[in-house]
Amino acid sequence: MTANQTPISLRIACVQMEPRVGQKVDNLRRSLEYIEAAAAAGARLVVLPELCNTGYVFNSREEAFEAAEPVPGGPSCEAWIRTAAKLGLVIVAGVSERVGDRLYNSAAVIGPDGYLGTYRKNHLWDAEQLFFEPGDLGVPVFEFEGGRFACAICYDMWFSEIYRMAAVGGAELLCVPTNWVPMRHQPSDLPTMANLLAMGGAHTNALFVAAADRIGIERGQPFLGRSLIVGPDGWPLAGPASPDREEMLLAEIDFNTARQLRALNANNHVLNDRRPQVYAQVLQPPLA
Amino acid sequence: MTANQTPISLRIACVQMEPRVGQKVDNLRRSLEYIEAAAAAGARLVVLPELCNTGYVFNSREEAFEAAEPVPGGPSCEAWIRTAAKLGLVIVAGVSERVGDRLYNSAAVIGPDGYLGTYRKNHLWDAEQLFFEPGDLGVPVFEFEGGRFACAICYDMWFSEIYRMAAVGGAELLCVPTNWVPMRHQPSDLPTMANLLAMGGAHTNALFVAAADRIGIERGQPFLGRSLIVGPDGWPLAGPASPDREEMLLAEIDFNTARQLRALNANNHVLNDRRPQVYAQVLQPPLA
Repeated sequence: MTANQTPISLRIACVQMEPRVGQKVDNLRRSLEYIEAAAAAGARLVVLPELCNTGYVFNSREEAFEAAEPVPGGPSCEAWIRTAAKLGLVIVAGVSERVGDRLYNSAAVIGPDGYLGTYRKNHLWDAEQLFFEPGDLGVPVFEFEGGRFACAICYDMWFSEIYRMAAVGGAELLCVPTNWVPMRHQPSDLPTMANLLAMGGAHTNALFVAAADRIGIERGQPFLGRSLIVGPDGWPLAGPASPDREEMLLAEIDFNTARQLRALNANNHVLNDRRPQVYAQVLQPPLA
Repeated sequence: MTANQTPISLRIACVQMEPRVGQKVDNLRRSLEYIEAAAAAGARLVVLPELCNTGYVFNSREEAFEAAEPVPGGPSCEAWIRTAAKLGLVIVAGVSERVGDRLYNSAAVIGPDGYLGTYRKNHLWDAEQLFFEPGDLGVPVFEFEGGRFACAICYDMWFSEIYRMAAVGGAELLCVPTNWVPMRHQPSDLPTMANLLAMGGAHTNALFVAAADRIGIERGQPFLGRSLIVGPDGWPLAGPASPDREEMLLAEIDFNTARQLRALNANNHVLNDRRPQVYAQVLQPPLA
C-alpha cells in the first residue's frame, strides 16, 4: 500500500433542521445542539443548511441586513468557532454575511483551530438577488487532516462548473448548505432533481457530496428536506432524509476513495479525460 | 402569442436495437426497417445507437478499420441518405467513420435534402482508444424546420461541458447515439447513472435529450438498453426503455418549450445565470 492509498477516514454529518426567520438566537442555539450531537456520534465535519441562523424568506433588505453579521466576528460565527475548538471538528454553516453595506449568502468554514475561510454563493436564486451580492471568492478549497473540501450553496448545484472547479481545485468533498425549493414537474417516482444533480455531480467528478437542507414552510415557501450524502461513485451513502423532519445524516468517508474512483477503469479518468481545449465555448454567452 | 412562442413541434424517435459485430449488411438493413417504422409512426427525426451498423466490441484495429466507412460516401450513409430523402426526415446514426488511415466514433447527421454533417465522439471510452481518434469537430449545431440540435455519443454525457456547448451553441435538442455499459455500484432502486445524467443535463441546460442505446451482450460486454427521451425540465417524456428488448421510443417535442424552460422563474435562467468569468478554472488541468 503506497502512501496515497492509506485511508484518510472521517465521519461527517449533515444537519437537516428548520431555521425560523426572525429567531436568530434560537436558530443558533439549536445549530449548536446539533453540532454537539454530531460530535457525540463521532462526526469530525458537520454541514448545516443555507442561512441556518437567520432563516431564508426575508420581507425586505432591511430585515436581511439586520440578520446578517461579519464572518468571522459576528455572534454566530464566534459561537461556532468556540464550539469547533471545544469539539475538535469542522463546521460548514450557511450564514448571511455582512461586509460593509453588502450582503452575501455565505458558508462560514470553521476548524478546530478557528476560522478557515468563507464561501460566497456564486449563483443567486430568485429574490435573493434583491438582498445579496453574487459571490466573489470563486470556489476556495480547504484542508482538514489530509483531505480537501470545497463548498457550494443550493442553486450553485445547478451549475456543473462548480463541481468541476471544486474537483479541479483538488477537493474530494463538496459541502453543500442548501435550502432546496420544489422544481417544476417533479415526478413522485423519481429522486428530487436536487438529489439527482448531487448524484450526477458526485459521479462525474468523483466527489463526495454532503448536502444539508432545511425543512418547513416559511412565509409560504416550502422547502424539500431530503438532505443526503453521496459517495464519489454517485450513489447515496446516507439519506435522502425525510422531506419534513429535523434529523441528522452520518456517513464514514475516506478521502482517498474519491481519488481512486476518479479512475473509471484502466483507461478512463473523470478529470484527466476532460478536453479543455475543446470546451472554450462553455465560457461564452449563449447564442440568442 | 409572439413569433418565438409559436410551437415548433416534431415527433422524434429513438431506436433501441442490437447491432451485431461482423454483420454490417444485416445491421444496416434492420436500421432501415426501424427508420421506416419510425416514419410510419409519424417521426420526423430518428436517433439510432452508437456504431449501429458495425457493432461495438472489435477484436483488433483491423476489424474496426474494415467495418468503417467514409461519412458521407460509405454504403451505410448512402442508404440512410436515400431513406431520409424518401421519408422526409432526419437520421442521426452512430457509425464507424474512416478518414484516410484514421477512424472516428461518429454520428452521421442526415436530413431530407442529404448529408448535414458529422459529430465525432469527443471522449473515448476504454478500448475505443485503441481504434479511434478523439473527435476534432467540437459540438456542431444543426437546424431542422426551425429547431436546432446537437449530438453527443455515450461517454460524452459524462462531461457536462458537452451539454453546455450544445446549449450555448443554440441547440434545443441533444441527440445521443449510445452504447451504455454498466457503472459500478449501480443500486437497483435508482435510475441507471446514464439515465440520471441525461435528466440532470437536460434540466440544467433546458435541453431535450434523446438517447438511443443498444442492447445485448457482445463478446462478453453487456449493454444497458434503457434508451430514453427527456424533456427540458429534466423528466422523461418516453422511456426508459427495457434493458433487453429491441423497441422504439416516440415523443412529441416542441423546440420552443426548451427556450421557454430556460427561465426557471422571473429572475432565473439556466444559461444566463452562468458566470463564465468565475469559471476559468474549469479549463485548467486538475491539481495533482
